[in-house]
Amino acid sequence: MFQLHPRLQADTQLLGCFPLSLVLLSKDANYPWCILVPQREAITEIYQLEPVDRRQLLDESCLLAEAMVRLFAADKINVATIGNMVPQLHMHHVARFKNDPAWPGPVWGAVAAEAYSEELLVQTATRISDALSPLGLVA
Amino acid sequence: MFQLHPRLQADTQLLGCFPLSLVLLSKDANYPWCILVPQREAITEIYQLEPVDRRQLLDESCLLAEAMVRLFAADKINVATIGNMVPQLHMHHVARFKNDPAWPGPVWGAVAAEAYSEELLVQTATRISDALSPLGLVA
Repeated sequence: MFQLHPRLQADTQLLGCFPLSLVLLSKDANYPWCILVPQREAITEIYQLEPVDRRQLLDESCLLAEAMVRLFAADKINVATIGNMVPQLHMHHVARFKNDPAWPGPVWGAVAAEAYSEELLVQTATRISDALSPLGLVA
Repeated sequence: MFQLHPRLQADTQLLGCFPLSLVLLSKDANYPWCILVPQREAITEIYQLEPVDRRQLLDESCLLAEAMVRLFAADKINVATIGNMVPQLHMHHVARFKNDPAWPGPVWGAVAAEAYSEELLVQTATRISDALSPLGLVA
């Protein structure tokens, strides 16, 4: 049975589900940062997914990436599957800005995570969820 | 007309072409590191590609990722589109090992690039090209 990795559970807030993936919001307030986790067991690499799941993940990734760029008027979106520490396949989507703390470098290892205030976390989660609901996100 | 970004041209060696993408080998000898560049003009994000091109890029990425993991007996493959410095859409594929210089962190910003010897560059390029040829790479 699919179960979210405890590290992802601790570091994110669940926004809802696309048909294949959980959509998570990272609790790092430095950047708007969402993570897709395909609800499949024992998968660590995209190529291990069945072809139909791969395509679904791609579609969900493109929907999420484009929505985030529009919503936050981002300069760039960084999309990555790293997974050296959390093996469960998860795909980062980080909205980037020319004045963000890590620009133009990648966000990993750049600056310490910044906690959201409770209010800003709720507000950000709501904004993203509202943008994704018409695209198929189920709360 | 599609033209490879000069920074990518300087930092990589061309291995060949898949139907959509150029396949490049990074000249950083710290890790086996290949880059796919879809031969399309003025594209900076995956979601800007036509759906048929998106799927082709996904297929090429999966072929490359799986081939690299097998060829190098890698512990993990990191797949990412960052592009904060080089806007032309390009997708990194970095084979990772538990004893590589950046493990378990991402490779970006971790350690300075290490030059290949001419001999090792040719050898590595040949090994990867030979593995990808049966998968559709055209030299």
